Amino acid sequence: MTEISDLHHVVVVGAGFGGLHCVNSLAGAPVRITVVDRRNHHLFQPLLYQVATTSLATSEIAWPIRHVFAKRKDVEVLLAAVNGVDAESRKVLFEDGGSVAYDTLVLATGARHAYFGHDEWEPYAPGLKTLEDATTIRRRMLLAFERAERETDPDRLAALLTFVIIGAGPTGVELAGTIAELAHENIVEDFRHIDTRKARIVLIEAGPRILPGFTEDLSAYATRALEKLGVEVKVGAPVSECSADGVVFGGVKLPARTILWAAGVQASRAAQWLGAAADRVGRLLVEPDLSVPGHPQIFAIGDTVSITGPDGQPVPGIAPAAKQEGTYVASVIKARLAGKPAPAPFHYKHVGSLATIGKRAAIADFGWLKVRGALAWWLWGFIHIYFLIGFRNRLGVALSWLWAYLLGHRSARLITQGKQWAGEEKT
Amino acid sequence: MTEISDLHHVVVVGAGFGGLHCVNSLAGAPVRITVVDRRNHHLFQPLLYQVATTSLATSEIAWPIRHVFAKRKDVEVLLAAVNGVDAESRKVLFEDGGSVAYDTLVLATGARHAYFGHDEWEPYAPGLKTLEDATTIRRRMLLAFERAERETDPDRLAALLTFVIIGAGPTGVELAGTIAELAHENIVEDFRHIDTRKARIVLIEAGPRILPGFTEDLSAYATRALEKLGVEVKVGAPVSECSADGVVFGGVKLPARTILWAAGVQASRAAQWLGAAADRVGRLLVEPDLSVPGHPQIFAIGDTVSITGPDGQPVPGIAPAAKQEGTYVASVIKARLAGKPAPAPFHYKHVGSLATIGKRAAIADFGWLKVRGALAWWLWGFIHIYFLIGFRNRLGVALSWLWAYLLGHRSARLITQGKQWAGEEKT
Repeated sequence: MTEISDLHHVVVVGAGFGGLHCVNSLAGAPVRITVVDRRNHHLFQPLLYQVATTSLATSEIAWPIRHVFAKRKDVEVLLAAVNGVDAESRKVLFEDGGSVAYDTLVLATGARHAYFGHDEWEPYAPGLKTLEDATTIRRRMLLAFERAERETDPDRLAALLTFVIIGAGPTGVELAGTIAELAHENIVEDFRHIDTRKARIVLIEAGPRILPGFTEDLSAYATRALEKLGVEVKVGAPVSECSADGVVFGGVKLPARTILWAAGVQASRAAQWLGAAADRVGRLLVEPDLSVPGHPQIFAIGDTVSITGPDGQPVPGIAPAAKQEGTYVASVIKARLAGKPAPAPFHYKHVGSLATIGKRAAIADFGWLKVRGALAWWLWGFIHIYFLIGFRNRLGVALSWLWAYLLGHRSARLITQGKQWAGEEKT
Repeated sequence: MTEISDLHHVVVVGAGFGGLHCVNSLAGAPVRITVVDRRNHHLFQPLLYQVATTSLATSEIAWPIRHVFAKRKDVEVLLAAVNGVDAESRKVLFEDGGSVAYDTLVLATGARHAYFGHDEWEPYAPGLKTLEDATTIRRRMLLAFERAERETDPDRLAALLTFVIIGAGPTGVELAGTIAELAHENIVEDFRHIDTRKARIVLIEAGPRILPGFTEDLSAYATRALEKLGVEVKVGAPVSECSADGVVFGGVKLPARTILWAAGVQASRAAQWLGAAADRVGRLLVEPDLSVPGHPQIFAIGDTVSITGPDGQPVPGIAPAAKQEGTYVASVIKARLAGKPAPAPFHYKHVGSLATIGKRAAIADFGWLKVRGALAWWLWGFIHIYFLIGFRNRLGVALSWLWAYLLGHRSARLITQGKQWAGEEKT
């Protein structure tokens, strides 16, 4: 019998979609696997905006990594923050001084939101990547309505009831649509002094149109659907300032107390750990087999790499791409260990693009089929629930949505972690 | 038509069980009502320990106060932290400098946990009163297992796998039982290096027996049920020290990295706001009609008052008592406004006591009926779900429980808000 410690050791850093699928695809291979993540949970990021906008609870879209792999005796999970790689001695280094040795390393460390060199905007315009980001946004948004209810000065009131979303990719569009529904439909009856139907939701995009990943007609449809919900869509309007008072875009100042950032991403520091070549947002440049140049035993997948699809277009930073890359890298590792020839270079297959605009509209583009409106919304809901990990979450999310859909309620309207009402006043 | 601002103005501070029931019972009375709370949500505190121990999500036991009263056009809700009362000019004062004038004031400001003059223990032994307390306890407990998984030193490992609960009232017993189930059943398969079945759960009580509010035989049954779950029950053992290293009780030092406090309560500062008489834990002494002596237009209810039942025993700090007091005060206010004679003095009716010990055991004492074991557990579950506010929450909680019961899963095993793994290391 082979001693387990003699087995080829694959270390996967990051338990997002890419890392998880890589580990899943390595099942049965003659390896032992260690998954390292700084979080104890896998996060279903495509639905994170629904936590931020009070529709879902945090635990409905997150699942303990340990529990995902409980039955996989070949998999060990470590909670640790990685801050370096010693490629010489083949070790992953942890912030707390620990380390783990690898034979093969898979970097699936993802991305954070980024401010295009304006990190000083972050306190005023939080982004959305983690559960904490989502509860922060939820708290700020709900507090703005609470403060508005007690505000008498008309200018301050207007700023409190203005919600600015910067960046009109899927996340920005989804945030804008759901905030508009929250303000204009769900909470109207709850306030006595303010009319939340008059809240302004302003979606700002530097480029010429929203959802640039979609065709022009779907993008135009999404703009009309957003405007129907009461969202003001401003395109061709780069933001030049974010502060506690509001934003400046296209030379115009808009007073606003709630600003959300959905504009830019920055890859994790994986390229720096390796001293390897990266693109301008820090994504590793990799070989056709997704290994890092000069490091055949190190692979990188998901939002932390920059690759080009067969059409010459960059592979988008979405879950299906990360999953395909994870599965592909597992096949390369298995072929190597079996002494078989390397698989053909990675080939990204675009299954389709989906974006939702509030409760009854969405757009879907599968190439051969373009759908919009209510049908696309149901398709979107079905696909997202299907892909959620774990039956419990699927059922919980399905019920939360059904409930919200039927009655217009939001189940998770909690202001938490803000220390105090008075404390938040200062941010 | 009466102008709404001419109506008698009742201000209720605190939207716990007492405040909520007072407002409910005032429906239809010729008053306008303002509810002031420093939180935006009503919290179903009896189930808070289930959030702390990963069985329920935060939003399953909390509900926006505004939403509870959305249909009550006579009710206004203000999110504000009260820090004083000006009884002379009949105003409630807010921390942020604001205020609200009242004709009648109902103080339902509740209690916090207290450390018997040892506030320096708080960082090491968090208590359980708010959603943040619950997620803090959840984070610390889960991190202890995570750190244990990576620990090699046997002494540090033992301290990481020792969980101490101080105080064996219902909350302490419920925490101990559910942590034992978590460690000894639910997460056993998730770890590779540690055997979580060997985790020690130690319940420490200064008094001679656990659950002193119950009869001796039910208390003895609860002890046996806890021991069956693997909880070590230590009675007659006052704690003399809490630190980062562990606890000292009955002269014995027990190294432990996770200590939870369920021992003492301290009333809110309502007595100080009024300069009124209070008992040793700060609870207001009130007239038989629950008004504050010398302030006939100010009432106090719930955990913020000290009253004695018809049997000469203190009225317990539990939800049914607060609800009865809220309803009673509403009847006094209505009688006054109608020019009718005052109702008979408040008379507490003890409906029964319930405590649960893990997944299949509970004790219930209704006076005429004492139940223990599985039947009591189902009774406990039914009663708690029944009283949860809002159908959505009932359904969500029922499903979470059913799921956990059938499969031994925990749905909310999230480590959040801890900044970083490395940062928590220092606490």
